[in-house]
Amino acid sequence: MPSNELGVVHTKVDRPDQQLVDRLSAFGVATVHEAMGRVGLMRPYIRPVYPTARLCGPAVTVLLQPGDNWMLHVAAEQVRDGDVLVAGCTTECEDGFFGDLLATSLRAQGCRGLVIDGGVRDVADLEQMDFPVFSRAINAKGTIKATLGSVNVPVVCANALVRPGDVVVADIDGVVVVPQERLAEVVEASETREANEEGKRAKFRAGVLGLDLYNMREPLAAAGLRYED
Amino acid sequence: MPSNELGVVHTKVDRPDQQLVDRLSAFGVATVHEAMGRVGLMRPYIRPVYPTARLCGPAVTVLLQPGDNWMLHVAAEQVRDGDVLVAGCTTECEDGFFGDLLATSLRAQGCRGLVIDGGVRDVADLEQMDFPVFSRAINAKGTIKATLGSVNVPVVCANALVRPGDVVVADIDGVVVVPQERLAEVVEASETREANEEGKRAKFRAGVLGLDLYNMREPLAAAGLRYED
Amino acid sequence: MPSNELGVVHTKVDRPDQQLVDRLSAFGVATVHEAMGRVGLMRPYIRPVYPTARLCGPAVTVLLQPGDNWMLHVAAEQVRDGDVLVAGCTTECEDGFFGDLLATSLRAQGCRGLVIDGGVRDVADLEQMDFPVFSRAINAKGTIKATLGSVNVPVVCANALVRPGDVVVADIDGVVVVPQERLAEVVEASETREANEEGKRAKFRAGVLGLDLYNMREPLAAAGLRYED
Amino acid sequence: MPSNELGVVHTKVDRPDQQLVDRLSAFGVATVHEAMGRVGLMRPYIRPVYPTARLCGPAVTVLLQPGDNWMLHVAAEQVRDGDVLVAGCTTECEDGFFGDLLATSLRAQGCRGLVIDGGVRDVADLEQMDFPVFSRAINAKGTIKATLGSVNVPVVCANALVRPGDVVVADIDGVVVVPQERLAEVVEASETREANEEGKRAKFRAGVLGLDLYNMREPLAAAGLRYED
Amino acid sequence: MPSNELGVVHTKVDRPDQQLVDRLSAFGVATVHEAMGRVGLMRPYIRPVYPTARLCGPAVTVLLQPGDNWMLHVAAEQVRDGDVLVAGCTTECEDGFFGDLLATSLRAQGCRGLVIDGGVRDVADLEQMDFPVFSRAINAKGTIKATLGSVNVPVVCANALVRPGDVVVADIDGVVVVPQERLAEVVEASETREANEEGKRAKFRAGVLGLDLYNMREPLAAAGLRYED
Amino acid sequence: MPSNELGVVHTKVDRPDQQLVDRLSAFGVATVHEAMGRVGLMRPYIRPVYPTARLCGPAVTVLLQPGDNWMLHVAAEQVRDGDVLVAGCTTECEDGFFGDLLATSLRAQGCRGLVIDGGVRDVADLEQMDFPVFSRAINAKGTIKATLGSVNVPVVCANALVRPGDVVVADIDGVVVVPQERLAEVVEASETREANEEGKRAKFRAGVLGLDLYNMREPLAAAGLRYED
Repeated sequence: MPSNELGVVHTKVDRPDQQLVDRLSAFGVATVHEAMGRVGLMRPYIRPVYPTARLCGPAVTVLLQPGDNWMLHVAAEQVRDGDVLVAGCTTECEDGFFGDLLATSLRAQGCRGLVIDGGVRDVADLEQMDFPVFSRAINAKGTIKATLGSVNVPVVCANALVRPGDVVVADIDGVVVVPQERLAEVVEASETREANEEGKRAKFRAGVLGLDLYNMREPLAAAGLRYED
Repeated sequence: MPSNELGVVHTKVDRPDQQLVDRLSAFGVATVHEAMGRVGLMRPYIRPVYPTARLCGPAVTVLLQPGDNWMLHVAAEQVRDGDVLVAGCTTECEDGFFGDLLATSLRAQGCRGLVIDGGVRDVADLEQMDFPVFSRAINAKGTIKATLGSVNVPVVCANALVRPGDVVVADIDGVVVVPQERLAEVVEASETREANEEGKRAKFRAGVLGLDLYNMREPLAAAGLRYED
Repeated sequence: MPSNELGVVHTKVDRPDQQLVDRLSAFGVATVHEAMGRVGLMRPYIRPVYPTARLCGPAVTVLLQPGDNWMLHVAAEQVRDGDVLVAGCTTECEDGFFGDLLATSLRAQGCRGLVIDGGVRDVADLEQMDFPVFSRAINAKGTIKATLGSVNVPVVCANALVRPGDVVVADIDGVVVVPQERLAEVVEASETREANEEGKRAKFRAGVLGLDLYNMREPLAAAGLRYED
Repeated sequence: MPSNELGVVHTKVDRPDQQLVDRLSAFGVATVHEAMGRVGLMRPYIRPVYPTARLCGPAVTVLLQPGDNWMLHVAAEQVRDGDVLVAGCTTECEDGFFGDLLATSLRAQGCRGLVIDGGVRDVADLEQMDFPVFSRAINAKGTIKATLGSVNVPVVCANALVRPGDVVVADIDGVVVVPQERLAEVVEASETREANEEGKRAKFRAGVLGLDLYNMREPLAAAGLRYED
Repeated sequence: MPSNELGVVHTKVDRPDQQLVDRLSAFGVATVHEAMGRVGLMRPYIRPVYPTARLCGPAVTVLLQPGDNWMLHVAAEQVRDGDVLVAGCTTECEDGFFGDLLATSLRAQGCRGLVIDGGVRDVADLEQMDFPVFSRAINAKGTIKATLGSVNVPVVCANALVRPGDVVVADIDGVVVVPQERLAEVVEASETREANEEGKRAKFRAGVLGLDLYNMREPLAAAGLRYED
Repeated sequence: MPSNELGVVHTKVDRPDQQLVDRLSAFGVATVHEAMGRVGLMRPYIRPVYPTARLCGPAVTVLLQPGDNWMLHVAAEQVRDGDVLVAGCTTECEDGFFGDLLATSLRAQGCRGLVIDGGVRDVADLEQMDFPVFSRAINAKGTIKATLGSVNVPVVCANALVRPGDVVVADIDGVVVVPQERLAEVVEASETREANEEGKRAKFRAGVLGLDLYNMREPLAAAGLRYED
């Protein structure tokens, strides 16, 4: 399944274990990204269109042509309950590929939300529906339906590779992609990290400094840090 | 009335029929922009300074010099009840041309809001007053009063041509300009479109796909789209 | 105390009079910036991570290396009750230097908030804690702890010079820096300006035009402004 | 002739006096812009694709759809000897609308060059042909031919209004648009300004300061400027 | 070979047929991108550091950490004669990862050039050496050597997926990536396209219009284009 | 001498030893920046207006108001032979503050060049004169002369602090500021570094790898790097 193939719809997506997805959905993007070893993050120009938007689910992917949302309609048929639609584009384009009608359609198919390296519109409606969308722009400019892209090929979205069935987590901190084969490992690492952070949070709240909690004083001195009045 | 004329105030604006403006105000920017045939949209860098800001009304226009808001005071006198002030600038400038005092003054003249290809400040006050402002930046830097611009000449604002009396519609999706001579036609097209969309929305909600609603399957196949397992 | 010195922590900060800081905290950034004579404003790319964030307090400064937050932990120990942490960086970097753990630690030390010429994460937590942060980006990408910067040296943050003990005021309009030696003067000028503005606001509300309130008609005519039907 | 009309080609352009165009072509953009009274400049993101590109001529205008260069072929037929093609776009798009084949075709029709609020490609060929192009981007991404725009309607290009027959001057300093009805006046003002500048240049070269040449010392003192050791 | 793996060097790269690479090197990026079916293009923010830079060769890939060029030294050992080094980064970073010393080293290993989603320095030296570099920034800021990335894993560079052994073509129009399995096909399509274009170029030069050469008049009329005086 | 003071001209600048400046002028920005310990670099958005521009000399500083170049004329009188003019601005502004007349005047006073956090014009003339200018934009838009700034106060330019008499080095890699009190030290460190680099360059040319030259193999293994077929 080579990436960037045009004119094809792969109808079969190997989706990950739902229980793992549910466990992963407990965590924020920053935690998951750390648990991944700090890879898989989309570029930070992708932003939620309303501040409380968040989502977690396996990706159905779509490769769009600039200013053309034909493939979003094709993709809508491939979405299963709990999926997240992830849309890359063959070039930079901030037109409004997506609005409340497509959101209504995707929701009817069980879709959890959209991540798109392009623009969207009807943002007030999207917020009212609480249909989470993460995009590079808000733009009322509509799109045409003239050129084929693809569905369920690997796509690059905001500089991150996303393959169908990879798990996407998005919130106000950004968007991270968990390769399906790493899902179990990342869930566990996220749980460990979160547990670990809770303990640290309590200590910080009590006034312990990171300098002591992380034993930084010695390496700082070794690196040459000096204190002056 | 050539554009870009400096040092002149046109005191007579041919305003559109108020009933048409009222009817237009029922629609969002995305709908109006479609009804226009997809022209007249400002560039998407113009954003509301608070998320619920929206406005609709005939334009009083002002051409500003960079870092100089003298002409906004001149324009305030030309505003009539229901007008929207639209400010272009002879060059890119993100200084804060506008704040709560001018908003108070404009509101006292009946002004519905401001669209400005520049910066504004006192944004918390603007939100509290619910005085809708759409700008390219938020910036505390004030401006001087030293150089003449013009009022009620055609201006280009965020790449859209705006003539006095054209109708401006703005919401979270952007800003669109309806030429006065097209107003009746655009109101009708907006109403038709909205009615039409309501029917589609119901079908999408019921699970009908855009592929079927828009009869896309045949043209997609004709374009060569193939489905694979 | 030269700027840009690396590898040093100055433990003694000459903090300003707390009563003056308290009086200054009554004013917004736009007012303070005007009272300063329109200098000392950070570039407007620094934005609050949630809309109601605001802060006022003396600066503890930190110079960071890109993608490295080691010095934020060192700085945490230097913070006293009421301080604001201001972080510059030796190069442009939008990584997430700061999150909820460091916010918890800083708050435990009495810190009022953070201004950082870089990225931050855990933004939903920061808003829930109401820990005000002003940054150039939101980014889940974490940082390492490998290279020395400095604490309490003069730093340049978003093009503004900030020395330890200077007072920083930040709200939705931006961030302004008041040199400690000008604090008393700026507090008084802010109070005068605010009182003055209240009177103007009432007049504007009553429909008086800026043209008359500021006696602009004569200079406008002198500059050649002409009115046409 | 309203702007933003779609689907129409106006075949008749009222071109300006060629002798005036020839006289104007002696001046750089900065001079012409000053002679215009500092209006009519495109936004500075439009840049020459090679440093020595420059052009001057009456505009044939074209309104493009994003990612679609169909109308450039339509426009090619409307170009007359000495014309400059000016292309606006209904939305921001940096795709490569134009390359060496179209340049060859335009040159064969006598076209002097292109100003486009979009991307172009084959830049090495364009330089070799010395076909001057001013664009917002260089981009190998090609375009489709699917949607109608218009030819010889008023267009907004990089925030400047351009009507067919207006004169466009472009060089490394930017692009300025001279409305046809102001051409004679602007030519004369440019000639006066240039003559005037030559005298100043000689004085500056001889060491005379602008302070004295422009009699600034008194107004500076009046404004409060003080000199300190 | 999953992408985004950290801490690993794959020493075996399956390189493409050299004769095919040589044939491909005859074509510019715009031609190759068309021959690819308009996929595989890097974002246009990647620019040559001097205008005549161009390169073609199989990729050795490297995944960098922000502000850290340790892995470029590791990669230098993996380069074989004719290779192109392609460097992605786990986050946006415009620091100067690369300069004349590394260029000297890479050239000694036979490397044809560098494509990097980051900054470079010593640009005057790079031009003098004629060592082609395509980067997102020019920046004198050096980097540290503290954190592992990887060599010869699939990387995303400027939004394009690059696997070791894929062929990279870069010139002033941009950078395109040819998947190794498509190389033969793309070479042939490029040769066909170029031959085809030569014929068109001659016709355009002779004054034939694209309207006629591409038989556009009928579809334009069908789409509703109308001509007016 | 506080920074950001408005309305004052300091006529006395403590200039550095000319011999040290001459020695420093032998080095490029990347070398000097490393010799500084990687501080003092301006943001990389400041670019030479022609590729071969380079300069080195003590700074005469000027603080400009946006769109106002009055102070450049005031500064011209304060320039001594060999000085570099460095202009900061109280806000972001890309107007053309500077052109060939001011360049002629500055050259007549012995000025070596200009670094400006704003726009410039007459770029073709500047290149022909070989008057090196480093700016954030090229823009034909002229400026007015209405508001006081200052001359020879500390200014922040592109995020770097520059005090009168500090030494500025600029070339195609960027702009770096050497505090006067560190000049001797930085000259020596630059000379040492350059000598050192020459030896390395020879070894790299001979095919020695950085892995061996810098003894990286052991620390890389310790960090966990693994090689795989």
